[in-house]
Amino acid sequence: MKISVKVPATTANLGPGFDCLGMALPIYNTITIEETVLPGTGIEINVIADTQEADELSLEHIPLDENSIVYKAVELLYNSIGQTPSELKITIHSQIPITRGLGSSASVIVGGLLAANELLGHPADEAALLSIATEVEGHPDNVTPAIIGGLVLASQEDDGSVLYRKLDWPDEWQITVCIPDYELATDIARSVLPKEVPMHDAIFNAQRLAMFVQAVNTKDTELMKAALHDKLHQPYRMKLVPGLEKIMENLKHEENVLGCVLSGAGPSILIISHKNGVDKIHSIVKETWADLNVKAEVKTLPIEKNGAQIIKQDN
Amino acid sequence: MKISVKVPATTANLGPGFDCLGMALPIYNTITIEETVLPGTGIEINVIADTQEADELSLEHIPLDENSIVYKAVELLYNSIGQTPSELKITIHSQIPITRGLGSSASVIVGGLLAANELLGHPADEAALLSIATEVEGHPDNVTPAIIGGLVLASQEDDGSVLYRKLDWPDEWQITVCIPDYELATDIARSVLPKEVPMHDAIFNAQRLAMFVQAVNTKDTELMKAALHDKLHQPYRMKLVPGLEKIMENLKHEENVLGCVLSGAGPSILIISHKNGVDKIHSIVKETWADLNVKAEVKTLPIEKNGAQIIKQDN
Repeated sequence: MKISVKVPATTANLGPGFDCLGMALPIYNTITIEETVLPGTGIEINVIADTQEADELSLEHIPLDENSIVYKAVELLYNSIGQTPSELKITIHSQIPITRGLGSSASVIVGGLLAANELLGHPADEAALLSIATEVEGHPDNVTPAIIGGLVLASQEDDGSVLYRKLDWPDEWQITVCIPDYELATDIARSVLPKEVPMHDAIFNAQRLAMFVQAVNTKDTELMKAALHDKLHQPYRMKLVPGLEKIMENLKHEENVLGCVLSGAGPSILIISHKNGVDKIHSIVKETWADLNVKAEVKTLPIEKNGAQIIKQDN
Repeated sequence: MKISVKVPATTANLGPGFDCLGMALPIYNTITIEETVLPGTGIEINVIADTQEADELSLEHIPLDENSIVYKAVELLYNSIGQTPSELKITIHSQIPITRGLGSSASVIVGGLLAANELLGHPADEAALLSIATEVEGHPDNVTPAIIGGLVLASQEDDGSVLYRKLDWPDEWQITVCIPDYELATDIARSVLPKEVPMHDAIFNAQRLAMFVQAVNTKDTELMKAALHDKLHQPYRMKLVPGLEKIMENLKHEENVLGCVLSGAGPSILIISHKNGVDKIHSIVKETWADLNVKAEVKTLPIEKNGAQIIKQDN
């Protein structure tokens, strides 16, 4: 049997929602698992870059053995029903840029899990899949929208389960994704975060995230502008993302811009705006990065309302 | 001229919303300002307890001179138009229990301000009144619902202004206010809080507050149950509120209870529940406190949707 799953890219955090908010975007990885007789460990993993972008080098970083996250996810699912994966060929067709803060790791975890779940005859329900994916990824804010789509508020509860709710993103708010040609590994981006933060920063972020949720519910532009700020992770990561501070500065007085935030741990940047602010944003971002000799892909995308989907199933 | 303003009690924080959330309750103080010729400093302040409760002792703590918060609020308003208050008799008819975490200080600040603003011919608009009240109180989460009523998400912005939004509290969620017969001064309750908190506690509270806002918007009981938890202030204040831990424990398995939180800095406790859980809650709270020799007033109240109101104006 051979099963393919198409999984969207995801952007997490969205400013104040560090480790809480995630959103699916219409860029996709396709993860295929094929049951086949294989030599050695019985596991083969291949990654194929589907785009012409500068990801060939990135691909080298991906372990293609039992250390890969896609294998870990598949293994946890097999283990949950007392089995061990073997004789599986896993192929990842990758369009989501790697180490850019766009949820490429979440996509392969989710893709592997859903394909394996299909192969095994659905031993895991959505809740179980969310728990396993979160266990492998470490936090639920990318894997949850990768599975269910849309904008999601998610948390991992004490019992390991994921509690989430979908929020209704207003169509009139445009999302511009700015992907620079340099990488930033999530573990490095995590390592610069302090273990303790000032109480007033904790209060600030809670306020902003509350404003974000209220603003989305009521399509309140003024409130969203106030909400799209963060003191828990962005200030610490600023120096790892050359150009971010300058781009924020240059967008500050653009009336149509609601906010500029890191996508996940970066280095991609997300800009939320009104429709008629988009062209100006593209040129400001490209010019600012060009001054630093950074090439960037800048694209305005709709939110992806659907989560991962099984697109091919050969029996 | 003589002006009276009726101001509701307020409960702040509501679990995860430390220094962000506040709600008006139907218990009232009335603040009257009378222009009259007075000896000495030209300022006279009187407080009269309107209830039979154990507040006579509390009243002793209230400064009745230029150090009082009501005077400070009135003075700031006069100063904002280049004047100094004098020949003013301020009388506070108090029904809101003092030093119990029910916004008695916010109510006298707001009452004094609104009465003085009326006396002076409305030099301050709502935004200016909110800023002055927040300056005197130190945070906007009690004074904002005291002025505008209802459930409010509020924050003080960098320029000193207060940004707030009213949230629509579902009528089916009952609020039971439990007021013990002991006091807890807000400055003591603030002094036990750390200046820094663990990052994961900051993330936890931001998640919970986001859930709270989403739950209120969508009347989502399951989400509200998950939301009504806090790691930023309640754990540190637990030891200052004898009985709180035990009451939380005893309510844990009550299906109709959505949550149990401190009211403001305590020692009053707020319990959110379904209607048919109310009687059981009253007896659990009273019995738990009785075991500790704490007498308590326990009452289930609707939210007060209106803010401060000018009720008497003699020219």
